[in-house]
Amino acid sequence: MAKPTPLTDDEIQRRLPEIEGWCIDEGKLFKEYKFKDFIEAFGFMTRAAIIAQAMDHHPEWFNVYNKVRIHLTTHSAGGISEHDFELAQRLNKLAR
Amino acid sequence: MAKPTPLTDDEIQRRLPEIEGWCIDEGKLFKEYKFKDFIEAFGFMTRAAIIAQAMDHHPEWFNVYNKVRIHLTTHSAGGISEHDFELAQRLNKLAR
Repeated sequence: MAKPTPLTDDEIQRRLPEIEGWCIDEGKLFKEYKFKDFIEAFGFMTRAAIIAQAMDHHPEWFNVYNKVRIHLTTHSAGGISEHDFELAQRLNKLAR
Repeated sequence: MAKPTPLTDDEIQRRLPEIEGWCIDEGKLFKEYKFKDFIEAFGFMTRAAIIAQAMDHHPEWFNVYNKVRIHLTTHSAGGISEHDFELAQRLNKLAR
């Protein structure tokens, strides 16, 4: 896999509409998902963990009860990259 | 189950040695666990999630790659209760 390159602010803003509900927080992609209860929230995290591991691209995420807050960035790129958009899209699909 | 009551600061300090590696942060029990990699960290979280759900006592937790940071408090008690010490003890046992 080629070394990921950071997207420019313009590219990020232009592409944000592709990933519903995500915004920029602390220079990273951010979204809070809300589920019915802890079982649903952790079920989502479990499926997401398997995808993240397969992509070798891991989220920074926080959970309390039915809420899951996720930040995505690409450390090796020093910013938000294509990988973050791809993972965000897959997480949105999972959460549907 | 009886409504949990908060422990006093004295009780908390006296009992902290029972739960290795835990301290007080923002008025909650806190510990950071560090694992070999994401698979080990999320494996721990999965086992912990099942225990937390069975206790109906859920952590506030953050994960990035091989690190898991956990805060425990009992909202219905308005502070740290017996339940938090019990869960902390079980998490330590899991992580061994």
